Amino acid sequence: MKSKPLVGILMGSDSDYDIMVEAAHALKRFGIPFEMTVSSAHRSPQRTAEYARTARQRGLRVLIVGAGAAAHLAGVVAAESTLPVVGVPVDASALKGLDALLATVQMPAGIPVATMAIGKAGARNAGIFAAQIIAGDEPDMIEKLESFKRELADGVTAKAEALQERLVRDGF
Amino acid sequence: MKSKPLVGILMGSDSDYDIMVEAAHALKRFGIPFEMTVSSAHRSPQRTAEYARTARQRGLRVLIVGAGAAAHLAGVVAAESTLPVVGVPVDASALKGLDALLATVQMPAGIPVATMAIGKAGARNAGIFAAQIIAGDEPDMIEKLESFKRELADGVTAKAEALQERLVRDGF
Amino acid sequence: MKSKPLVGILMGSDSDYDIMVEAAHALKRFGIPFEMTVSSAHRSPQRTAEYARTARQRGLRVLIVGAGAAAHLAGVVAAESTLPVVGVPVDASALKGLDALLATVQMPAGIPVATMAIGKAGARNAGIFAAQIIAGDEPDMIEKLESFKRELADGVTAKAEALQERLVRDGF
Amino acid sequence: MKSKPLVGILMGSDSDYDIMVEAAHALKRFGIPFEMTVSSAHRSPQRTAEYARTARQRGLRVLIVGAGAAAHLAGVVAAESTLPVVGVPVDASALKGLDALLATVQMPAGIPVATMAIGKAGARNAGIFAAQIIAGDEPDMIEKLESFKRELADGVTAKAEALQERLVRDGF
Amino acid sequence: MKSKPLVGILMGSDSDYDIMVEAAHALKRFGIPFEMTVSSAHRSPQRTAEYARTARQRGLRVLIVGAGAAAHLAGVVAAESTLPVVGVPVDASALKGLDALLATVQMPAGIPVATMAIGKAGARNAGIFAAQIIAGDEPDMIEKLESFKRELADGVTAKAEALQERLVRDGF
Amino acid sequence: MKSKPLVGILMGSDSDYDIMVEAAHALKRFGIPFEMTVSSAHRSPQRTAEYARTARQRGLRVLIVGAGAAAHLAGVVAAESTLPVVGVPVDASALKGLDALLATVQMPAGIPVATMAIGKAGARNAGIFAAQIIAGDEPDMIEKLESFKRELADGVTAKAEALQERLVRDGF
Amino acid sequence: MKSKPLVGILMGSDSDYDIMVEAAHALKRFGIPFEMTVSSAHRSPQRTAEYARTARQRGLRVLIVGAGAAAHLAGVVAAESTLPVVGVPVDASALKGLDALLATVQMPAGIPVATMAIGKAGARNAGIFAAQIIAGDEPDMIEKLESFKRELADGVTAKAEALQERLVRDGF
Amino acid sequence: MKSKPLVGILMGSDSDYDIMVEAAHALKRFGIPFEMTVSSAHRSPQRTAEYARTARQRGLRVLIVGAGAAAHLAGVVAAESTLPVVGVPVDASALKGLDALLATVQMPAGIPVATMAIGKAGARNAGIFAAQIIAGDEPDMIEKLESFKRELADGVTAKAEALQERLVRDGF
Repeated sequence: MKSKPLVGILMGSDSDYDIMVEAAHALKRFGIPFEMTVSSAHRSPQRTAEYARTARQRGLRVLIVGAGAAAHLAGVVAAESTLPVVGVPVDASALKGLDALLATVQMPAGIPVATMAIGKAGARNAGIFAAQIIAGDEPDMIEKLESFKRELADGVTAKAEALQERLVRDGF
Repeated sequence: MKSKPLVGILMGSDSDYDIMVEAAHALKRFGIPFEMTVSSAHRSPQRTAEYARTARQRGLRVLIVGAGAAAHLAGVVAAESTLPVVGVPVDASALKGLDALLATVQMPAGIPVATMAIGKAGARNAGIFAAQIIAGDEPDMIEKLESFKRELADGVTAKAEALQERLVRDGF
Repeated sequence: MKSKPLVGILMGSDSDYDIMVEAAHALKRFGIPFEMTVSSAHRSPQRTAEYARTARQRGLRVLIVGAGAAAHLAGVVAAESTLPVVGVPVDASALKGLDALLATVQMPAGIPVATMAIGKAGARNAGIFAAQIIAGDEPDMIEKLESFKRELADGVTAKAEALQERLVRDGF
Repeated sequence: MKSKPLVGILMGSDSDYDIMVEAAHALKRFGIPFEMTVSSAHRSPQRTAEYARTARQRGLRVLIVGAGAAAHLAGVVAAESTLPVVGVPVDASALKGLDALLATVQMPAGIPVATMAIGKAGARNAGIFAAQIIAGDEPDMIEKLESFKRELADGVTAKAEALQERLVRDGF
Repeated sequence: MKSKPLVGILMGSDSDYDIMVEAAHALKRFGIPFEMTVSSAHRSPQRTAEYARTARQRGLRVLIVGAGAAAHLAGVVAAESTLPVVGVPVDASALKGLDALLATVQMPAGIPVATMAIGKAGARNAGIFAAQIIAGDEPDMIEKLESFKRELADGVTAKAEALQERLVRDGF
Repeated sequence: MKSKPLVGILMGSDSDYDIMVEAAHALKRFGIPFEMTVSSAHRSPQRTAEYARTARQRGLRVLIVGAGAAAHLAGVVAAESTLPVVGVPVDASALKGLDALLATVQMPAGIPVATMAIGKAGARNAGIFAAQIIAGDEPDMIEKLESFKRELADGVTAKAEALQERLVRDGF
Repeated sequence: MKSKPLVGILMGSDSDYDIMVEAAHALKRFGIPFEMTVSSAHRSPQRTAEYARTARQRGLRVLIVGAGAAAHLAGVVAAESTLPVVGVPVDASALKGLDALLATVQMPAGIPVATMAIGKAGARNAGIFAAQIIAGDEPDMIEKLESFKRELADGVTAKAEALQERLVRDGF
Repeated sequence: MKSKPLVGILMGSDSDYDIMVEAAHALKRFGIPFEMTVSSAHRSPQRTAEYARTARQRGLRVLIVGAGAAAHLAGVVAAESTLPVVGVPVDASALKGLDALLATVQMPAGIPVATMAIGKAGARNAGIFAAQIIAGDEPDMIEKLESFKRELADGVTAKAEALQERLVRDGF
């Protein structure tokens, strides 16, 4: 990524990479430069606070934050920044991400965290949502978002056609 | 609200008003003009689709959507608009909002809904989050957000002081 | 299927096929012609609305709708049609179908979705339930349903007998 | 109700009446004659089996069954009849209807129960759903269902208008 | 089993055999003759009712009933017999046995089902519990139960000793 | 209670009395003498162990144990006695008895606790279940149980008749 | 409190006071000096970090931290201090403290939070647990803890006696 | 371990060893001597009570207790000792450790159990938490704890650097 990043992707552990890379793919799709790093709410609190506090002056416009279990990272980042923070609950414990979901979404009044679905779908959507924020009322970006929506719809049509062949194959 | 609204607040039922008005209060706090209306994903699907499809050209920049039970409204709106959609799950059934939370947050890849906490805290935060989106890199709005953050912190200090008096009163 | 379909099976994603094909098997068992396609509440909302709105005039009598995660598809279809809509929650997320179940079943007053069990059992039952609806008071179809019930009971008797042999084999 | 009932409403306990009467209101709205009685899966199993077994020959076309806690009633009725059975989970225990929901909806393959939402919304929808089944392709009933849908949409518009006045009253 | 059975083990499906055989092992351990068969609350309701109604006169003293999903079998059996009914929830759906647990245990006042843990531990315990019931105040059986308790305690001591070796092996 | 008690009712706290007295009412209904006391698994472990260890020689035949929250009492009693132990989860915490239910029912293999429903229905059923155990094959007690079952069924018929009047009153 | 505090009680909001004062009562019971204040993980992150970082040098030996909803406070404090941190989940949202429990207890490896029960029982126990930590091997404090345990047991005996009178009063 | 143990690690079953050994690793890391054994709340109650009652005079300062399912072991140990008891819920049933978590954490007022996360993270943290307790105000141990905290933070930095290489490798 040569351009100055507009989105910061933060994850609590490098084991979240396979999930959070979905956000990166989405941002790449929309041509939005981003940075990605690891910082833990609990193991590296200063690093996390520093990251959040300097995010805006470093030019970031949105923060995407993924964490599992007692997922405090997004909330802790939101406490230290006025940037929009998008949280991605990661399924990383016996409770299948329900803990991460509740710990991310149930923020008290005053400090919002915009929470996405648990896991890969959520990370992918965090990237798309960051694009929607950054798009603002810029026609180019809006066109990209609309073209993406059309692609989604076209993908459904294509799958519907493929399904007809499968039905024949399966003897219906 | 004389200025042209930048945020649309949509709720599935007028019984959600007492919750969703918290978003209005937050937006008012930041001086962001908004509009507020009722439309149901299920009882008035055309009205809802129409609202979502025309939202951007009517000048809206963020949509805040509250609904309870099988809360489809935010997802349905997100399906029809490329604006950022912020979902507020409302506690409106025997399951205490868990149904609304899961129905709002567990969106499939492609169509993000930025989900807030269940109920009033979530609605309040939806308004703040919309302000964070709209702020972009505009210094005035950023200053308002930072001043709000300072107020939150000052409120804590004030409460901490009041607590000391209460401790004395309670004989500790 | 040469005859004009009486049942439409809709699924939110082609990855739901292995589940939803159970509904097709059940309908085939009762000789009820059906059609099957893919459409998403979120990725192809117009296609979905179009499908639902035209379903009755195309001769369909029941709609079977399967979806996972924030499963809005059945509700969205029910919003656009007065046909009976049968919902099948699909286990397609970390939450094991609990999200899909709640998002399908907790519909607000006015727009019913007849919800079946999560997964294959639910899809199979959706097909049987459609047959029960279509049967009405037609003696032939009722006889088919009653013969199916007798088969179920006979299957239990056969399994009970096989169990006696297994008990002996296992040394009881 | 003078006409021969087409729908049987069954509830496990007379304490479910306030919930299940919503189904009756819905059926009355569509002019569908019904009967309503109490029978328990556990306290009066013979009465329940008898009711279910004779339902079809007595002219019933749909059975609506409400029960709470370990809600077996709908399943037990479905086991004894080939009529479409619509289940309504009632919130009647410390677990707030989650037990009744799972006990009603998670039916094994072979014996469908069409499950509605927990409580009053579910009971109301059970009545509407029965109307959808009975309507079949009869133009009069279809028109009634469509007119009901229009009323729902009109109700939303009316509420949206009332909301504008409330916003003014509340100083927005 | 040559002697006349004192315990009847009933399961809703032959796929529950691997779980329910644990009850058989426990009964064999205490020398209690038993019978074991398959009957479904939903697929073979008459067979089930017949089994339950005749259980006492056929000499049975306890009924052990295992079922999964919307596990109605134990409740249905308890409705038709005054024998003690012991329920075993089987993990047989996406919800991991939580549905079966709630559908078995949350019985309404009047018709008890003595519910055991989900799965193998529960089936094993159902057999032991049946032995405790049948033991009554018969000294021989009580001694067997007490000797079993001593064995459990001795097993713990043996495992504690083995653990010390493992700790050494693992370098502690 | 003049006769020697056959059932011991134990509760973890006197605040459980209003729930557990339902077991006493049920036992009284069947003429079974009982005793009732308070002992806590955690606050009075020796008293609890002593109670459980001496229960059989004091002539008790069944132990009914109610507790809330981390409800260990039934399990602790079952660990110290070979009598049948019936557990009643009490709704005594924010989690509405789900904690007590899981802590009571999920016993490991070897030490059964026969768990009833949460709250009053469960306590009532614990008394009935104790009666079923004590009845054994004694004709008098069996007749009492069967007469109780008939009463339950008659109660349903009476309620069904009362419902018809209510329907008329409510204008149906 | 004249002596130098050994325990710091921190709560996320002054609305948690009625819960957290239970910890104060417990500490007072054991004669352990404490301090109590309000600080939020999200609204006053610097104040919170400052509090945690200076806690040890200010002479504190244990930190008791109560918070509701997405309860990050205990984790955030534990991230900044090597003192033992005891977390108390507060029931402060629609989800009845389940969110606070999971957000407090599911800490990742490296940063423990010793979690107590939801609500008042948990706060009371946090105070007792702090006393157990501070007691170390000091005979005086150990004697206080043992005397407290004896009081708990004596309280049970007293309640058991009172119950006998109530049973007589209630006609048993 | 030659030195006299300061921490006792107790587990309900030897099948918990792979989880609980994480506590041992943590204690070894801090040079704290410990002992480890198996005892069940239910299968060996006397052994468990004996272990708990003698723990303090044998020189132990903290007890770490792991158990699954209806995890009563930590509570039972806490009932018999005034030492700090740290509970580790083990995922050992169909309910994925939710049962063990609730049965461990929801202790009634008077008898605290300091509960850690479900599984390995919880066991590891139990060891660290025991070190925090034992450290008291001893400078050497405090330095070890602070050095451990620095290592955690350094580990994050190292992982963040490795991530940058991975991003390049993955073509971002």
